[in-house]
Amino acid sequence: MIRVAVVGATGYTGGELLRILLAHPEARVDHVTSESRPGQKLGEIHPFLRARLDLTLESFNAPRIARQCDVAFFALPHGVGSKNIADFVTLGKKAIDLSADFRLKNVKTYEAWYKVKHASPELLKKAVYGLPELYRKDIPGTPLIANPGCYATTTILALTPLVRRKWLVPGSIIVDAKSGVSGAGKKVDPMYLYCEATENFQAYAVAKHRHVPEIEQVLGDQTGRATTLTFVPHLVPMTRGILVTAYGTLKKKMTAAAVRQAFEEDYGGERFIRLLPEGRWPQTKDTAGTNYVDINVTIDERNRRVVVLAALDNLVKGASGQAVQNMNLLFGLPEAMGIK
Amino acid sequence: MIRVAVVGATGYTGGELLRILLAHPEARVDHVTSESRPGQKLGEIHPFLRARLDLTLESFNAPRIARQCDVAFFALPHGVGSKNIADFVTLGKKAIDLSADFRLKNVKTYEAWYKVKHASPELLKKAVYGLPELYRKDIPGTPLIANPGCYATTTILALTPLVRRKWLVPGSIIVDAKSGVSGAGKKVDPMYLYCEATENFQAYAVAKHRHVPEIEQVLGDQTGRATTLTFVPHLVPMTRGILVTAYGTLKKKMTAAAVRQAFEEDYGGERFIRLLPEGRWPQTKDTAGTNYVDINVTIDERNRRVVVLAALDNLVKGASGQAVQNMNLLFGLPEAMGIK
Amino acid sequence: MIRVAVVGATGYTGGELLRILLAHPEARVDHVTSESRPGQKLGEIHPFLRARLDLTLESFNAPRIARQCDVAFFALPHGVGSKNIADFVTLGKKAIDLSADFRLKNVKTYEAWYKVKHASPELLKKAVYGLPELYRKDIPGTPLIANPGCYATTTILALTPLVRRKWLVPGSIIVDAKSGVSGAGKKVDPMYLYCEATENFQAYAVAKHRHVPEIEQVLGDQTGRATTLTFVPHLVPMTRGILVTAYGTLKKKMTAAAVRQAFEEDYGGERFIRLLPEGRWPQTKDTAGTNYVDINVTIDERNRRVVVLAALDNLVKGASGQAVQNMNLLFGLPEAMGIK
Amino acid sequence: MIRVAVVGATGYTGGELLRILLAHPEARVDHVTSESRPGQKLGEIHPFLRARLDLTLESFNAPRIARQCDVAFFALPHGVGSKNIADFVTLGKKAIDLSADFRLKNVKTYEAWYKVKHASPELLKKAVYGLPELYRKDIPGTPLIANPGCYATTTILALTPLVRRKWLVPGSIIVDAKSGVSGAGKKVDPMYLYCEATENFQAYAVAKHRHVPEIEQVLGDQTGRATTLTFVPHLVPMTRGILVTAYGTLKKKMTAAAVRQAFEEDYGGERFIRLLPEGRWPQTKDTAGTNYVDINVTIDERNRRVVVLAALDNLVKGASGQAVQNMNLLFGLPEAMGIK
Repeated sequence: MIRVAVVGATGYTGGELLRILLAHPEARVDHVTSESRPGQKLGEIHPFLRARLDLTLESFNAPRIARQCDVAFFALPHGVGSKNIADFVTLGKKAIDLSADFRLKNVKTYEAWYKVKHASPELLKKAVYGLPELYRKDIPGTPLIANPGCYATTTILALTPLVRRKWLVPGSIIVDAKSGVSGAGKKVDPMYLYCEATENFQAYAVAKHRHVPEIEQVLGDQTGRATTLTFVPHLVPMTRGILVTAYGTLKKKMTAAAVRQAFEEDYGGERFIRLLPEGRWPQTKDTAGTNYVDINVTIDERNRRVVVLAALDNLVKGASGQAVQNMNLLFGLPEAMGIK
Repeated sequence: MIRVAVVGATGYTGGELLRILLAHPEARVDHVTSESRPGQKLGEIHPFLRARLDLTLESFNAPRIARQCDVAFFALPHGVGSKNIADFVTLGKKAIDLSADFRLKNVKTYEAWYKVKHASPELLKKAVYGLPELYRKDIPGTPLIANPGCYATTTILALTPLVRRKWLVPGSIIVDAKSGVSGAGKKVDPMYLYCEATENFQAYAVAKHRHVPEIEQVLGDQTGRATTLTFVPHLVPMTRGILVTAYGTLKKKMTAAAVRQAFEEDYGGERFIRLLPEGRWPQTKDTAGTNYVDINVTIDERNRRVVVLAALDNLVKGASGQAVQNMNLLFGLPEAMGIK
Repeated sequence: MIRVAVVGATGYTGGELLRILLAHPEARVDHVTSESRPGQKLGEIHPFLRARLDLTLESFNAPRIARQCDVAFFALPHGVGSKNIADFVTLGKKAIDLSADFRLKNVKTYEAWYKVKHASPELLKKAVYGLPELYRKDIPGTPLIANPGCYATTTILALTPLVRRKWLVPGSIIVDAKSGVSGAGKKVDPMYLYCEATENFQAYAVAKHRHVPEIEQVLGDQTGRATTLTFVPHLVPMTRGILVTAYGTLKKKMTAAAVRQAFEEDYGGERFIRLLPEGRWPQTKDTAGTNYVDINVTIDERNRRVVVLAALDNLVKGASGQAVQNMNLLFGLPEAMGIK
Repeated sequence: MIRVAVVGATGYTGGELLRILLAHPEARVDHVTSESRPGQKLGEIHPFLRARLDLTLESFNAPRIARQCDVAFFALPHGVGSKNIADFVTLGKKAIDLSADFRLKNVKTYEAWYKVKHASPELLKKAVYGLPELYRKDIPGTPLIANPGCYATTTILALTPLVRRKWLVPGSIIVDAKSGVSGAGKKVDPMYLYCEATENFQAYAVAKHRHVPEIEQVLGDQTGRATTLTFVPHLVPMTRGILVTAYGTLKKKMTAAAVRQAFEEDYGGERFIRLLPEGRWPQTKDTAGTNYVDINVTIDERNRRVVVLAALDNLVKGASGQAVQNMNLLFGLPEAMGIK
């Protein structure tokens, strides 16, 4: 039985982690922390956990948690947890960080986009980017997983088969992304009030979103050269789900079947990627509450353009489900345990 | 006082027309028709009209309506009303058609996309495409207005300043469009059931939507050469509203200010186009129930890409509001009367 | 032309007031105030007003506004505006207060429920409770209208024909009320976040809601004796609308027709009350954006119980529309002007 | 391993059953049937099941399914499956019926409310009403479980502690019930279209709902005398969830604590009933996707009235989860297996 701590358990990501871990046959949550509400019962924060997980929130204490747990999930805002993570890892335990702090290899890029000084830059080299479909073999040995962002997971999986094969005209990639409101976390901002968000659709951070460097870094790594894209995120009046519509111009004319074949080659063996039948388009609802990514691809022949659609649940495959997938890999368990 | 008939008054478009006309100081609805429910009271179909508009649905009869009305709005599915429209126009009265039947100049293109034989192809030449911001001067003299589609209105207004100036690389236009569920009309299809549509986001008709030829025809007309684009529509879990995110590659490097200037030149005098302040992105909610199109534009310098966002209410500026705007122009009234 | 000030123009009620007044043929908004955002343009707070109402928010100043306006609407939280209202009224101008401050005749009851000291208790006697359907004749001469609450308006209109006739067993009234989220105002409370409120239904303030004394005061006034009721409000995942389901036990057996007849007698001449045909139940959507109250009534014979259903738009008939109805009465205009 | 058939697998209830059974450690779904879509793959009907449950829909055949399965869940509309159930039970296998067909003991009452002739009235006596909290001990030996309705489950559990103790004035019970749209099943009726149901709230079947006799029968059984109530159901713009607000007049004055004590006595040992802490009201979201019923109770002293609130997920505890709870009891498994 793996003994688990959830550091920062009061947000949506923390709540989803607890929901998943509760059903995991080989994990047991022993510690939940919160700096804002230590001493409170978990069931008051997440009423759906009442009568199911009777724990009390505590303040984070690296030595105590390291003594009693094998792994800690850090579900904190960026810039807040990296010092604690360093302390925890130094004590020989595994950390899975759901924030953006250890995703970017270049500390300057991180500090420019996130506007904070990185507290533990020395750990960046050791962190593995926890997208199992691309970096599965690097995970078991690492002390620290940088769990990918939700937009990044969707976009990278949508585009990897194309960029790996260098089929796209450089600079031609456009990613039009749509996310449910829980993607913003439990932030109390007027923009996320029910009356503001419902029956409304809008773009935000147009061509300037923080997840762009993360996506470009990984796609660049897959294709072996610098890769840029235009990224426009939108807010959908729903709680969960991301759908990415990715566009690229093909260097040469190709059939839809040939493009599709590339996705089958790369993802045919993947447990959590479902390449949909021809003519069926991913919808967020089909992935809700699951760790699946649904993908399909087609060609607009007249413009030599490829269109890839990918959908997932931002709180599961886009955050907590993928984190548990990474935990399974870290501890040598079947990758899908507790999340199938 | 203009005497009005609404032909096909039971759908969402018909209902919205009645809501708008009720507040119009120079129009009076005298006839409402329905082939499926003749004899029923309007208030049973549209309960919000109870105690406000006491009319009974009747079967369409061209001579009777032509005798008693000055103009008829045809809010019917495509392929259903064109014969009736021809009869009505022949009797010397004005018709405003909200279906797709008279939008495409090429009857073969129409028949290929809509899979019906056109009943009155001879009228195509006389019909004016009723997008006042582009074709205002052609409207007053025509007997027949082809009222633009909702996706088409949004997309064309988003792209016209750019294509007119030939600033975009041919074949580089991508239109990622998002519509509320009312865009599909009152169709009783499982896809539009509450439990299917809510908390869900999906694409449909990927790169194959019927509105593409309409958009390409008008943009081609504005730029003087054949224009193609990739168009992907999506379904948003909300009732009203369209947001279009349009992308194009600039032939040469330009500043955001220069691009913005083009929009100000073209739309500065337009009553129903609001070019938003820099950094403010259109949201559908701000246009709900109004005839406004909200637009903004920016540049992604790294990829020499222009991004235009445009939002409107698909039932108002995307259908019934624009139809009343056309009626005002047809009858020499102030263009914004009853819809400001 | 009536010159109008909206004091507290940034909330949902203020926004709705502006939307309504914009279309009013005899009113012109000259001043809008906000203590939190003086100097800001109205279009930044309410983007739907862009290009339609070009005013700048100012700090409230009784003498200046009294000089330039005929009437001021106070759309402030309870306890905040009563001193300003007193100043304004003293200067000889009309005030319409949308808060709860002048609704309760007994200042002790007010202070007990609202937990603030009343700043202008001497005005309570002069204030008229602005429910035109009950107190129409008292409105024209008064300097101060206490505009009714949304729950109170719905409940009082649902029950008045029954309590006036003393048909109900004392103590038997139960009001099960349901409101959209905008009823709580633009409060930034986690409970009103999109992800918390959507796909959720809950009761709150069970049997302890502040609107109870207001309702009991007015029903008591109509029936001539103290009246009590059990009131349970619920939060519906929608923006606008209230539906009240009111239950009472009949003193003696009655037919549905006889009960219905009472409603027809009392409300048959009312412009804004629609008694629905038998078997048709009110739904909030039919009243959205309008000043109508939709009502229907039936009998559960086995339990000698009467059930009344009433629906309205909490921001219109439940607040701003009714306030304009009161303004019309105050100034001798047709009661339905601008809100029909 | 229990071998399971789901008869009528294409609706919301059938889908939810499959979702639950997929995670059940001792059950395996071997057969899924549909009369409207035999031959189709399950993943086409329920895309969330793709890659998780690879079965093909077949036509119902009692002997074949009885040979290969231990139990069949019948998730069919009322009046459709009772003959098949009789055939299946005759072959010695267990049936769990999620329709209303075997809930009412009196066949005349059934036929009056459901307006069909009952095909297998002889089975009514053998059927056990599958509400484990009340009839747990009768379940193991029965061949046929009549799985309770969702409104009935919520209402009965809300009122049982009160009616058992005969604390309520006869005829004083009022049940104001609210349900999400999935309660209506996957019916393609205009009322359930997204644009009709969203941002709307309404009552239906006022004081005439079919579930009334079911509730009255069970409450009568618990209290030992005929019990009547007024029942008004409402439609909430959300997919899942029921909240019932139940009111009754107490025969004599009681404290809230004393009333609460009764609920603790009756439900303290129940695995799936959570009596919430004082002042916390049930919300449907906390029960979504779970088999829990959340309950709380209070007193309105001035009117000697008790108010009980109860919430559950209509597709889980209100249908498929409870059905699996019944299966566990039928086969001697831990009651909460696969649904905790």
